[in-house]
Amino acid sequence: MAQLTLVFHALTDPTRRAVVERLRGGPVATTELAARFDMALPSFLQHLGVLQKCGLVRSSKKGRVRTYELSTAPLKAAEDWMATQRLLWARRLDQLDTFLNELKEPPE
Amino acid sequence: MAQLTLVFHALTDPTRRAVVERLRGGPVATTELAARFDMALPSFLQHLGVLQKCGLVRSSKKGRVRTYELSTAPLKAAEDWMATQRLLWARRLDQLDTFLNELKEPPE
Repeated sequence: MAQLTLVFHALTDPTRRAVVERLRGGPVATTELAARFDMALPSFLQHLGVLQKCGLVRSSKKGRVRTYELSTAPLKAAEDWMATQRLLWARRLDQLDTFLNELKEPPE
Repeated sequence: MAQLTLVFHALTDPTRRAVVERLRGGPVATTELAARFDMALPSFLQHLGVLQKCGLVRSSKKGRVRTYELSTAPLKAAEDWMATQRLLWARRLDQLDTFLNELKEPPE
C-alpha cells in the first residue's frame, strides 16, 4: 500500500513523468538528463530523489559519472492495481447486463 | 497531461484508493459508502470530491439519495501511460541484448 502511495505521488509531477519518458529509451547520465530540463540542478536532483525513493529509477556510479535507469516493477504494480479495479467493475457491469436481459426475457 | 496529474494525485491517498476498490463492485449511496470509513463526513466528502474532479467517479441524485459510481476511462488512460513507458523500456533492453549477442557472435 505504502509503495503505491509513493509511486502515484512520484507520478503526479509532470517533470518526473518526463524523466520516466526520457529513461524509457535507456540509461542516461545525470548531466545529460538534467540538460533536457530547464530547471536548477538542486531542484532537478530532488525530483530524481523522489523517483529513486519509490523505486521507479535506480542509479549507479562509475568514476565520477552517475547514471540513471528505469526500473519498471513499480510501474507494473501500479498498473496491475488499476487494471484490477477496472476489470472487476467491467465484470460487474456485464453481470448487471445479463440480469437485466433475464428480467426482460426470463430463461425457459 | 493535467488529467494524468489529477488522477495520480487522487490515487496517492489510501482512503481514496479504498473508495475506488469499494465502487468496483457497483454504485453505492453516499451514506452506505461513508459508513465503511472511520472518518468525519466532511473529510470523507472532500475525498469523494477529489475523485469526482479527476473523473474517477461520478455521482447522480435520485430524490434525497446521491449515488457514486466508478468511471474507468481515467484509470485506463493512466494505465496506458505507464504501460507505454514500461514496454518501450523492455523493447530497448531487447535491442541491447541483440546488439550484445551480435558483438559476441557476429552475423555471417
